[in-house]
Amino acid sequence: MSSPPPVDGRRARGERTRATVLGGAVQLASVDGLEGLTIAHLADRLGVPKSSVHTAFGSKADLQVAVLRRTREILVEHVIAPSLEVPAGLPRLQAVGDAWFAYLAGDLFEGGCVLSSASSELDGRPGPAHDALVTVMTEWLDFLAGNARAAIKAGDLDPAADPAQIAFELQAIGLTANWHHQLFGGDAAFTAARAAWAGTLGRHRPAS
Amino acid sequence: MSSPPPVDGRRARGERTRATVLGGAVQLASVDGLEGLTIAHLADRLGVPKSSVHTAFGSKADLQVAVLRRTREILVEHVIAPSLEVPAGLPRLQAVGDAWFAYLAGDLFEGGCVLSSASSELDGRPGPAHDALVTVMTEWLDFLAGNARAAIKAGDLDPAADPAQIAFELQAIGLTANWHHQLFGGDAAFTAARAAWAGTLGRHRPAS
Repeated sequence: MSSPPPVDGRRARGERTRATVLGGAVQLASVDGLEGLTIAHLADRLGVPKSSVHTAFGSKADLQVAVLRRTREILVEHVIAPSLEVPAGLPRLQAVGDAWFAYLAGDLFEGGCVLSSASSELDGRPGPAHDALVTVMTEWLDFLAGNARAAIKAGDLDPAADPAQIAFELQAIGLTANWHHQLFGGDAAFTAARAAWAGTLGRHRPAS
Repeated sequence: MSSPPPVDGRRARGERTRATVLGGAVQLASVDGLEGLTIAHLADRLGVPKSSVHTAFGSKADLQVAVLRRTREILVEHVIAPSLEVPAGLPRLQAVGDAWFAYLAGDLFEGGCVLSSASSELDGRPGPAHDALVTVMTEWLDFLAGNARAAIKAGDLDPAADPAQIAFELQAIGLTANWHHQLFGGDAAFTAARAAWAGTLGRHRPAS
């Protein structure tokens, strides 16, 4: 293995530029989509030369993958991290629903969840961005299914329940909360989503 | 009121051109999105002069609205019409789920459901296409809620259930079946969606 290159002033500046460009790119992608995320449009929005964006990200495909990875980090920070404060299983599934709807209600992204809109855009478009999205979404469904499995093991959910089925049903609620909020505005989406989340987990409780 | 203009050969040809262009536009929108639906790209795909597309639809905004209306017709034909053969209420809600998942599994659109991807694209973009989408989706949620209301009245669903909540939960399942199928491929999405649909309706049955 080679040793890491020394961190000098030029490199630190490069990292800061990259972080700034990426923050702008995530917002732009949420409005215009990953396909609308051109280097020219992004440079114009950020008021930086196109060459800076090129230097930071190389190509549009690299930029798309970087945006998906950054969005994943934001999701982990806002939705998953708070749920890690409670035990795995049913308490964590309940907490992750609360965190998810609070995150969606907070309108962090100008144009709604990037992962959700990227899903519509990238279907039928094989390539690095599609692969990155499949990886993130698989990881997310596995997180939900893993906690469903832990809840079953703890006796909090029905031993006959299918963890992947529960993950599908919970993902459906969050995806649709984002959809409803973005399309119709207001907070009715989150009231409905919270009731659906509790109801879905309730439906998979062990028969008493 | 003025009498309708006589149908002559020129007008009939115009209608045929419009129908052909619209069919191509729906497919293109399913892959490239409504925003990617440019008159130049569509003319190129169909092998017709740009002027034909302009004559048929006028502007990109008119074309977007026409695509949403045509997609609504396709949804009515494939998903709602079959369900009208059974009584309103619970039987119709069960039938509409079956028809919806068969329609999604049939991959009629090259790039997945246009209404679903349009929702991601048009949020935060006020205009005629956004208004047309809100109208179509409101009508769809009202169809689901109306049948939930009929099912409650018939004693097939819990009198304490909220029809709008049931509509949200059913919409979530179909939206996510499309999402899962487009992203991961295969038919696992529809197996999960059928189980979720039956389970959701079951959860809202009257307490026995």
